Amino acid sequence: MNPVELIRKKRNGDIFTRDEIGSLIQGYTKNKIPDYQFSALLMAIFLKGMTSEETAALTEAMLYSGKVINLASIKGSKVDKHSTGGVGDKTSLILAPITAAAGINVPMISGRGLGHTGGTLDKLESIPGFRTNLSLTEYKKVIRKCGAVLIGQTKDIAPADKLIYSLRDVTATVESIPLITASIMSKKLAEGIDGLVLDVKTGSGAFMSKTSDAIELANSLINTAKAFNKKVIGFITDMNQPLGNYIGNWLEVYESVKVLKGESRGDLLTLSINLSGAMIYLGGKASSIKEGVEISQSLIDNGKAFEKFREIVKAQNGIVSYIENLDKYQKSKVVEMVYFNKSGYIKEINTFGLGMAALELGAGRMRKEDKIEPKAGIIFYPKIGDKIKAGDLIAEIRCESPQKADLAKERLYNIVKTSASKVSRPKLIKKIIN
Amino acid sequence: MNPVELIRKKRNGDIFTRDEIGSLIQGYTKNKIPDYQFSALLMAIFLKGMTSEETAALTEAMLYSGKVINLASIKGSKVDKHSTGGVGDKTSLILAPITAAAGINVPMISGRGLGHTGGTLDKLESIPGFRTNLSLTEYKKVIRKCGAVLIGQTKDIAPADKLIYSLRDVTATVESIPLITASIMSKKLAEGIDGLVLDVKTGSGAFMSKTSDAIELANSLINTAKAFNKKVIGFITDMNQPLGNYIGNWLEVYESVKVLKGESRGDLLTLSINLSGAMIYLGGKASSIKEGVEISQSLIDNGKAFEKFREIVKAQNGIVSYIENLDKYQKSKVVEMVYFNKSGYIKEINTFGLGMAALELGAGRMRKEDKIEPKAGIIFYPKIGDKIKAGDLIAEIRCESPQKADLAKERLYNIVKTSASKVSRPKLIKKIIN
Repeated sequence: MNPVELIRKKRNGDIFTRDEIGSLIQGYTKNKIPDYQFSALLMAIFLKGMTSEETAALTEAMLYSGKVINLASIKGSKVDKHSTGGVGDKTSLILAPITAAAGINVPMISGRGLGHTGGTLDKLESIPGFRTNLSLTEYKKVIRKCGAVLIGQTKDIAPADKLIYSLRDVTATVESIPLITASIMSKKLAEGIDGLVLDVKTGSGAFMSKTSDAIELANSLINTAKAFNKKVIGFITDMNQPLGNYIGNWLEVYESVKVLKGESRGDLLTLSINLSGAMIYLGGKASSIKEGVEISQSLIDNGKAFEKFREIVKAQNGIVSYIENLDKYQKSKVVEMVYFNKSGYIKEINTFGLGMAALELGAGRMRKEDKIEPKAGIIFYPKIGDKIKAGDLIAEIRCESPQKADLAKERLYNIVKTSASKVSRPKLIKKIIN
Repeated sequence: MNPVELIRKKRNGDIFTRDEIGSLIQGYTKNKIPDYQFSALLMAIFLKGMTSEETAALTEAMLYSGKVINLASIKGSKVDKHSTGGVGDKTSLILAPITAAAGINVPMISGRGLGHTGGTLDKLESIPGFRTNLSLTEYKKVIRKCGAVLIGQTKDIAPADKLIYSLRDVTATVESIPLITASIMSKKLAEGIDGLVLDVKTGSGAFMSKTSDAIELANSLINTAKAFNKKVIGFITDMNQPLGNYIGNWLEVYESVKVLKGESRGDLLTLSINLSGAMIYLGGKASSIKEGVEISQSLIDNGKAFEKFREIVKAQNGIVSYIENLDKYQKSKVVEMVYFNKSGYIKEINTFGLGMAALELGAGRMRKEDKIEPKAGIIFYPKIGDKIKAGDLIAEIRCESPQKADLAKERLYNIVKTSASKVSRPKLIKKIIN
């Protein structure tokens, strides 16, 4: 097939066949279609869209550009979660052990920090010794032993996605529902799962600020999962404020352990057990999401969730004493308290700015090659709707450099907007689609 | 300026500033913006369009990517014509000598055959000895001497256009009004002209089959010419049948000489003297197009138009005896008559197919590196509205290979559609815009 004719076809708003999409992806990954043709195609897809059938075919072609892991030899359901990312979003660390403790396999392949949002791998690697670069043999071994495993993407998994994502990044074609869908789903389907819970975030700290866009993406992801006969549930959740209070890699492990031990309540616990509840339901160990949530809470209460986390950390080479005794890990060199300078009800939190501030402290990367400072970050206390007054402690900054701490402090003074009148708290779970 | 941000801007349908367009064209021609980013930009421009201000800025940036010829030292007006191309369109060969004979300079930089349409350079080079690859010094010398010159694009003229056109060709971004406009106008404005007559063709043998598209393109070209303070007139003309009867390089020179000598009438004469009439008007030697047409006819009648052509051919190294005695040039090896197999009124001519048939006989190139056979082509007699009957001679095929002639003959049987009832003749000049 002639790539120019196919670009013209999409440019004219016509619909590709499965074979046409297959030949485009094969052609590109095998270097037969040059970057300059593929980028024109990406822009045409961006502007003309794709039907759900085209999106499924694109996902399929990208999925089969690499290895699809077969977990048939492992007993029980295999269910994973994918989040579109946000600030303080550490639910993977909580729901993987809970769901595994409920008897469901969680074969989780995660990513690193992207822009203002953190990445599960970076968080886990802040536990001294923890290895995320397991081979596929080790991956299977850990999941067989613990019922859960958390690793990074290997180069065998959906290599087409890696290539295409790099090109999208430099051609302003990232924010496209069908392209995002195929990118996410080609990697998730490669894990060998039966079911998937989606957490599509919306708000000032999410990649999709508008709820309508988040719902559109959720529907596209759900349609694609269904096209592959996977069980799927989509959550639309609020990201107008950080999830929990801790932002930064070790800080987020710390807060996750607190939740797993039943020592922390609030939005992070609520969302985590809702997502694990849905996973337990999809995995067939509960008759409803609600029952799954109850099971999740009881696994925290009876200590099994934390015990499972300990087991996973150990299986992946992490030094468990750091999570058993959270104060073992020495604090950052610089610990700076931030006291508020205004009074009123918290109306808005610039969550993107908060994520960027944490990144600049060392919690994330400005460039690919930057090193992460595992303990750096921000503990941010207020939530939308809270009443605070001048002089209240709103945040704690942790990092290695006093200069960076000063800069972050400046940023934090301007990160919230207050109102003289009462402000209602945003709904955490906006919608559940299945 | 960050190219990704600029691609995003156009993708979102926003309007570029002149500086932004300048930096994009500079960045691309200086190899600082890679092909894959520029092709994504081209697709965004294709699908989101450009305002007339953006189109003028794009033209300007492409124009100043190269040399702009200064003809200030040459007395008198400088007026050129540009045609969007069609089958049998040889008016340049006729109107250049007429207009020059009327005392107006015609500094014409032309192209080669493109797809199913012929190119002025290929036609002129079918005159033995004729040189189109003059240096800029020779170019000025010939125009100073003859008042007209016909050469090919040099690599100094709008190099950005050459680069961008090659990329458009392989990324399905050719048929875009702003991109076509900037491509045409950046080359025409480099010639050093004061005025320009546009012949935008529409119909089955044109690049724009719909009249509304042709009018849109004409308006875009006119607006851009005006933005550069050039006098301009646009013709929308019919290309639902070949112009004149001769298709093929030497065949078209032959027919042009016949017109210049006053020995051929019909659509080719009519359009040629209307275009030269408009050029004479723009050049200030007539008070209206109509008066320009009358002057043109008188210059044919008094022999001055042909004499001027002789002079140009001589100045550009052509052997004039070939145009003085048209039968000097030996005919093609194969001359095949085609007699019609149906009866009725000619309703439709597949003009694109006719152009392709001539190309396959050797009149054009399938690939860039193909050689042209100067005498190959088709003489095609019927016009829409003519009544013909089975057995009438409709065409004469000329080429060097009997196999090729047979294939062309097959094609020609199916090139026209007839009707039992009378068919009205299409209007040659559909609209004049100024």
